[in-house]
Parts: sequence; structure tokens; C-alpha cells
Amino acid sequence: MIKARVTVTLKNGVLDPQGKAIEGALGALGFEGVGQVRQGKVFDLEVEGSDKAKAESDLKAMCEKLLANTVIENYTISIA
Amino acid sequence: MIKARVTVTLKNGVLDPQGKAIEGALGALGFEGVGQVRQGKVFDLEVEGSDKAKAESDLKAMCEKLLANTVIENYTISIA
Repeated sequence: MIKARVTVTLKNGVLDPQGKAIEGALGALGFEGVGQVRQGKVFDLEVEGSDKAKAESDLKAMCEKLLANTVIENYTISIA
Repeated sequence: MIKARVTVTLKNGVLDPQGKAIEGALGALGFEGVGQVRQGKVFDLEVEGSDKAKAESDLKAMCEKLLANTVIENYTISIA
């Protein structure tokens, strides 16, 4: 059993209204000095087997097909 | 300027219907051997100043107050 974490973040230049809202909310709560906030997603997956290279290529395919929208998002895969 | 990443994940035992849906979708796409999938959130923040200890305590307060629901979620802070 391989545990992996996939992190999906918006590409630079893509507007992030959710991040902007968090920025505003942090300011309203009195947190000063907070610059840009950007929100992304994280997926913790369990993959059967013990072949890390195969797991990584499978995870890459999962990101391309489902987990990330590669037009506007980047993804990183880290295998524990 | 300090860059930090906050990762918010569901605590063990908390149901994650979104993760379950992704699990089902990956199976439907033909990816076999995918076990549990859990989805979380990631926040990339920029904090002004250069005092990492202060930034970390500020970020902890932000997590407790806004970024995470500590009843059902865990958070981790990593400062670049």
C-alpha cells in the first residue's frame, strides 16, 4: 500500500476569488500584513501495490484526467 | 516577505463524501487499486516581515479562527 499526496494549485495569473475573499476576511479579523492568499486542493490517496514508479505514473494519469484541470491548475505528486 | 503553506485535512473518522465520490470516479475511469481518497485544502499565504516565529504564531491563530474548523479538521503550517 502506497500513500500519496497530490497538491493542486492554480497557475500564476489565474484569478482566485476564493483566495481574495480569505484575504479580506483575515484583514477584517485584524490580521495585518497578510499579502496574497491563494487556495488549492489536496488529495490523500492510497494506491495498492509497492511499485512506486508505477504508482507515480498512475497518479500522473489520474491528475491529467480527473484531479486537476491542467488548463488553469498545476499539480505536484509526493509519495510517502 | 514570508511565504507559507497551510494544509487543512479532515480528521480521521470524519466522513468525506467528496473523497468517496473521487474514489468512485477514479474506479469508473479504469484506475484499479485505488484505496481510500480524502480531500483537503491548501492555502498559500504571503505574510509581511521576516520574523518566522511571529509569522508561525500568526498563522496558527488564522487557522484556529478562520482557515480550519478544528472540530473536524487538522492543519499543518509549513514556512518556506
